Amino acid sequence: MPREVRERQMLDAAVVAFARHGYQAASMDDIAEAAGVSKPLVYLYLKSKEDLFMACVRREVGALVAAVREGTRERELTADQQLWRGLTAFFAHTAARPDGVAVLYRARTQGEPFAREVAAMRVEIVTIVTALLGQAAQDAGCGELAEREVSGLAHALVGAAESLAEWANSRSCASADSSSAKDTAATLMNFCWAGLENLMTGRPWMAPGH
Amino acid sequence: MPREVRERQMLDAAVVAFARHGYQAASMDDIAEAAGVSKPLVYLYLKSKEDLFMACVRREVGALVAAVREGTRERELTADQQLWRGLTAFFAHTAARPDGVAVLYRARTQGEPFAREVAAMRVEIVTIVTALLGQAAQDAGCGELAEREVSGLAHALVGAAESLAEWANSRSCASADSSSAKDTAATLMNFCWAGLENLMTGRPWMAPGH
Repeated sequence: MPREVRERQMLDAAVVAFARHGYQAASMDDIAEAAGVSKPLVYLYLKSKEDLFMACVRREVGALVAAVREGTRERELTADQQLWRGLTAFFAHTAARPDGVAVLYRARTQGEPFAREVAAMRVEIVTIVTALLGQAAQDAGCGELAEREVSGLAHALVGAAESLAEWANSRSCASADSSSAKDTAATLMNFCWAGLENLMTGRPWMAPGH
Repeated sequence: MPREVRERQMLDAAVVAFARHGYQAASMDDIAEAAGVSKPLVYLYLKSKEDLFMACVRREVGALVAAVREGTRERELTADQQLWRGLTAFFAHTAARPDGVAVLYRARTQGEPFAREVAAMRVEIVTIVTALLGQAAQDAGCGELAEREVSGLAHALVGAAESLAEWANSRSCASADSSSAKDTAATLMNFCWAGLENLMTGRPWMAPGH
């Protein structure tokens, strides 16, 4: 079997083990067994438990960012349609790969090199969303939406999406379900889109006394 | 000096140390010195580093929940006014106590007993927000907003607020600034309120093809 196939099997098994048991408790013996290979082969290919975990983190970061990028690829759509597709792609991905997402969640708290990968991924996703909201503001002829405001809104949207993904995964033991991913994306669109649209067309929510 | 004053000084110093250096790297020597007491006195009062950290986590959890509760106390206000006050109270608190918030952030990743305290706090805050959204739906005469939908929206709102608080604190080294807390709360209201209001009055955002 070619090395890349073997490596993929090892990573698949490792993602499940790290997601379910955590970095410390995950066992290299169990990972090798689940991958159907010997433990020395795991060390030969992936060097160490630390390197194996890092390889899992990088693969799952790449897969998540690719899903969001693919979802927001069609620049000729209106901003709400792009956002809708991006969110649908995001929730479909998190529903289909709960273990992959759990690895990223664990990596955030697993010390420096791992946390940095996840932080960089978050910056990348916030950047995609910021560009999207910037375009939406421009489409709406709303040049005066300050950079600070767009950045704040992008962080709010990403935080809401993360929290919803965790909530959706905690509720369902079902496997990937694209209709429930759409429900979750629609919940978030309902939550935010009309608000964003009003803001961008110059009708912000008004604090009392203004 | 009464014991409770001394203990408060120890916790104040410990929150700063844990927030800035993390649980492992924070030094009991430095904490004692910053609190102006001897290290044996810290151990006499707080038992161990673990117990000291837990005391910090519990104090900061209590303070954050109290701030949100206080902000959403006035039941005779409309739901958007209550939400506005609750968010303003939340962001004022997180801006005024960045180290306290950082301790909670670190506690999430510091193993079981600590992570459980923060998870319980999150459940409590989600419960407050869920009740608020439930009331808003009722006020709007919108009985059919499903429990699932309200729960999802509450998780989205709490995730957005957490993400915004972190973003706001990372941008500003200024000390507590109530006007910037209001700006942040207004950003989130803009982001979500009109969306929620439309949803509750039976005008949801429509996915393409519906």
